[in-house]
Amino acid sequence: MKQPHAITSILQQLLQQSQPLYREGKVANYIPALANVAPEQAAIAVATIDGQLHTAGAADTAFSLQSVSKVFGLVMAMNRLGDDLWHRVNMEPSGLPFNSIVQLEWEKGIPRNPVINAGAIVVSDVLVSHYSASKNAFLTFIRRLANNEHIYADQAVYLSELEHGNRNAALAYLMKSFGNIEAEVPQVLAHYFHQCATSMNCQQLATSLLFLANRGVQPHNNEQVCSRRDAHRVNAILSTSGMYDQSGEFAFKVGLPAKSGVGGAIVAIVPQFGVITAWSPALNKFGNSVVGMKLISLFAEELGLSLF
Amino acid sequence: MKQPHAITSILQQLLQQSQPLYREGKVANYIPALANVAPEQAAIAVATIDGQLHTAGAADTAFSLQSVSKVFGLVMAMNRLGDDLWHRVNMEPSGLPFNSIVQLEWEKGIPRNPVINAGAIVVSDVLVSHYSASKNAFLTFIRRLANNEHIYADQAVYLSELEHGNRNAALAYLMKSFGNIEAEVPQVLAHYFHQCATSMNCQQLATSLLFLANRGVQPHNNEQVCSRRDAHRVNAILSTSGMYDQSGEFAFKVGLPAKSGVGGAIVAIVPQFGVITAWSPALNKFGNSVVGMKLISLFAEELGLSLF
Amino acid sequence: MKQPHAITSILQQLLQQSQPLYREGKVANYIPALANVAPEQAAIAVATIDGQLHTAGAADTAFSLQSVSKVFGLVMAMNRLGDDLWHRVNMEPSGLPFNSIVQLEWEKGIPRNPVINAGAIVVSDVLVSHYSASKNAFLTFIRRLANNEHIYADQAVYLSELEHGNRNAALAYLMKSFGNIEAEVPQVLAHYFHQCATSMNCQQLATSLLFLANRGVQPHNNEQVCSRRDAHRVNAILSTSGMYDQSGEFAFKVGLPAKSGVGGAIVAIVPQFGVITAWSPALNKFGNSVVGMKLISLFAEELGLSLF
Amino acid sequence: MKQPHAITSILQQLLQQSQPLYREGKVANYIPALANVAPEQAAIAVATIDGQLHTAGAADTAFSLQSVSKVFGLVMAMNRLGDDLWHRVNMEPSGLPFNSIVQLEWEKGIPRNPVINAGAIVVSDVLVSHYSASKNAFLTFIRRLANNEHIYADQAVYLSELEHGNRNAALAYLMKSFGNIEAEVPQVLAHYFHQCATSMNCQQLATSLLFLANRGVQPHNNEQVCSRRDAHRVNAILSTSGMYDQSGEFAFKVGLPAKSGVGGAIVAIVPQFGVITAWSPALNKFGNSVVGMKLISLFAEELGLSLF
Repeated sequence: MKQPHAITSILQQLLQQSQPLYREGKVANYIPALANVAPEQAAIAVATIDGQLHTAGAADTAFSLQSVSKVFGLVMAMNRLGDDLWHRVNMEPSGLPFNSIVQLEWEKGIPRNPVINAGAIVVSDVLVSHYSASKNAFLTFIRRLANNEHIYADQAVYLSELEHGNRNAALAYLMKSFGNIEAEVPQVLAHYFHQCATSMNCQQLATSLLFLANRGVQPHNNEQVCSRRDAHRVNAILSTSGMYDQSGEFAFKVGLPAKSGVGGAIVAIVPQFGVITAWSPALNKFGNSVVGMKLISLFAEELGLSLF
Repeated sequence: MKQPHAITSILQQLLQQSQPLYREGKVANYIPALANVAPEQAAIAVATIDGQLHTAGAADTAFSLQSVSKVFGLVMAMNRLGDDLWHRVNMEPSGLPFNSIVQLEWEKGIPRNPVINAGAIVVSDVLVSHYSASKNAFLTFIRRLANNEHIYADQAVYLSELEHGNRNAALAYLMKSFGNIEAEVPQVLAHYFHQCATSMNCQQLATSLLFLANRGVQPHNNEQVCSRRDAHRVNAILSTSGMYDQSGEFAFKVGLPAKSGVGGAIVAIVPQFGVITAWSPALNKFGNSVVGMKLISLFAEELGLSLF
Repeated sequence: MKQPHAITSILQQLLQQSQPLYREGKVANYIPALANVAPEQAAIAVATIDGQLHTAGAADTAFSLQSVSKVFGLVMAMNRLGDDLWHRVNMEPSGLPFNSIVQLEWEKGIPRNPVINAGAIVVSDVLVSHYSASKNAFLTFIRRLANNEHIYADQAVYLSELEHGNRNAALAYLMKSFGNIEAEVPQVLAHYFHQCATSMNCQQLATSLLFLANRGVQPHNNEQVCSRRDAHRVNAILSTSGMYDQSGEFAFKVGLPAKSGVGGAIVAIVPQFGVITAWSPALNKFGNSVVGMKLISLFAEELGLSLF
Repeated sequence: MKQPHAITSILQQLLQQSQPLYREGKVANYIPALANVAPEQAAIAVATIDGQLHTAGAADTAFSLQSVSKVFGLVMAMNRLGDDLWHRVNMEPSGLPFNSIVQLEWEKGIPRNPVINAGAIVVSDVLVSHYSASKNAFLTFIRRLANNEHIYADQAVYLSELEHGNRNAALAYLMKSFGNIEAEVPQVLAHYFHQCATSMNCQQLATSLLFLANRGVQPHNNEQVCSRRDAHRVNAILSTSGMYDQSGEFAFKVGLPAKSGVGGAIVAIVPQFGVITAWSPALNKFGNSVVGMKLISLFAEELGLSLF
């Protein structure tokens, strides 16, 4: 493994190398609150399980977690429901994007996995049904993981999501028609969108997920966030399904469990080593950050981190 | 890592532990040549990149490779075509089984990945088009990898497959209608079924794939079978797509790149360590060997081999 | 054409002949309000454009219109929107039942035709958006057609539908996500379910739709309910799509434009002659009344009414 | 009904009126033999069951029947197999075009109806299996109907179809994998393509199908070609499914059972009156002749022929 200061200088170099790609992507525009983010920004942070933190770029600029939030929600639901969760959501890759709805139909309301929208809505239903104040519980969980009381959900993003959430409403009602949503749909969607609207920066995000690289134990306070087995499982799911319809290509090129969000964040887990987070708002056609993908794949290659 | 003799005794113990599961599966019956195989057989072999070989059970009983053969064909086609291969086949997980055909339709004849049937048929087309005698070339390749001149294709299985190959013919003609099959379909299918009919035992199979655990280099003769990058890529594809519609669950439970076939074989790659093969003919509803799955998952757990 | 009294006696005879089929069907049970209807009831009514009315059985027992109400809503929306309606809904048969949702996805929120649920929800949106009190407007329209002020919507059925309407909510939100629903979804669904809950008997229903057999003119008051062209069009749509996934078979066996509902009603239009309605609550697997189908097909055969 | 000479003059007038539309369509180009046909040609013929024949334009120029041939094949298969045919092919409209293959998958190899390709391939299988020389039997049948010994199959078109028939081969092998094709696929496809390559002109085509407008009886020789019931059934199928994915719109606008082919022909049946055929090679996006559609819809409107 490289020396600490070497890592920082690698990160800075990769950042410079990746900036020409800013214009190859397009900022998410399905809600105004995201469309207004300036595209030419980027950051990378590497947190290691032995306590180091290396960053380059705008590593303390906050962004909207969006789908990256599904990882936190999943861990909470696994802790609450145990293996029963897997009766309500599968753990298989989802294949074609157009399947999101036909698949629910075919498999009678059971989503393919917990990190596609339908699956995360089931997870939200679990949280809404098991916590008296699930939005707060979610924030509390993240704050403890990040060791930071100031993480919050962006209200403008939240309200904007709610307003443009018809497609997710369709998924939720379809699942409810199959009996796979327990709470009222509007409440479930409110939790889901609130969770997506969580605002974090690269440093916080990298730190907060270290337990997934460390057999379930959060290094800064030695808390067992989830079982070792569940940490493996989350990584396994991220590895087959975390990068939308580019998950196979990401495994192919990078070889690490990862999750991305349309806010431009990507988080990659390196078991026994640490967590890499990258952020840059402009997305490719799959919804993954162009510069973020580049940063993580160059860094993983440079340090030989592929699991394969 | 455990001592060599410890490994052998673990394998024997696991075999005993798994035998009660024989009756939970069902031998593949879509062709008579496979349906006649006695169900109550099992074997496991572990080959390591430092030259050890441990086995338990019927490790020198030959079985039909079936879909496991796709791994060899893929490596050959990657070597021949280079990155151009990825214009003709994707590298994404395939999702629902019923999609095999609708997906080809939707994505204009480009299969989701090279280890589903449609993808392996494209790979076969590449081999037929680039070798004057592709069936021989395939056998020669495997024999060199296994360091064994006696590996052959079972003619009864081959002819039986040809006779019952209507569904694969449908896939091939559909891809040809999109211009993604170059050779004549009957010739492509002949190669494909011949490849599937290859007969090997657990020892041979484990040894022959060591290069995938060893950055592309076959240990016994130091031959660079494929580039390090391509070895990673094959492992990545197997990790998201190698176990049919149980690939996610296998990643979840075992956490290793693997490929199974309806002949009852499963091969799992442990990067930097070696290859595990297991065989037992009775299959679960996904087409994966019941006892084979059990053997590999217990062994991986015992030795802590999960990549995640 | 047979003599009037001959028709009545034919109807009575057919009713006797069809009663043994009561037990071949099953009353709709997706909402309690429908599940409680006694299965062993049946009625048939024939209204002619020259003012005759013939009935047999429980022709003044009211039932829930359910999907038959789509015909009235469609005529209202055609009158209001003119040809612009056909930018928001197609006029093609819908094929496989499982398509309802994948088709909306594939065709970007445009339903295949106005008599499947998705299409009728678009029609409801048109009515909600163009009438200040669309539920009342709908009842007023039907009452005028039936020349009967006592037709109403059954509140128990309406509330029951609302409560079990998750699948229709999924369709509505999906279409809204494509911009094909203008009003708020709950309001649109409220109209839709209210319309479905309309309660009528066979006599009223037959009389009220005579204008479709009479080039748009309602015989009892000579009102031009819709243009001659639109009357043809409604009949054309019913002829390809009115009987769920048995529309082709109905054309094959009966050869008349028709619409059925899961309340057990079927209405068939005989251009230039009149309207046949039949009702019996037990349904076949396609959702069509078993005895109703039998009554109408026997009557059409007896009188040689097939258009083909 | 108009006077005979009036009909001829109407046809001539409609032809003039429709010619500006030549350029709105595009000649079928999937096989060279069809792509070479000059686009600016058109003809219309009306044969009545009382023996009149009216034509305008190139009514004795021969064209390729293509899918119009499915009507003849269907009648032959109904005669041979009786109601057993309907265990092997349904009679429902097919919905979305992309379904052709996924539908076969979903419904286990049973095509939606006999006038889509999959259904016509099953019909071809019936003919191949029940006639020692099915191609000749087909030509003999048409020649007798048209009372013309000179009708033949165009060899250039036939060979061209065979060469470009991969998609139909895919359908055939898929159905064979479900056990719904009895003969060898290449033989079935040879019959199918030979049938499609039949060459006829508008006059011959109109005359040959008069039995469908006349309860199964061919007027010129009083032969009962099929039962009255089967004539109704064929008309019913054409009415819901004869015009590809524009069948609903055709019912809506014209209101007659009809079948079109990519050779540019359209035939419409007017029960108890006669048969209209139109031909012009340039097709709209659905595969229907632009000028042919216009000619038939104007004529049907002019004479008030809609069944609805």
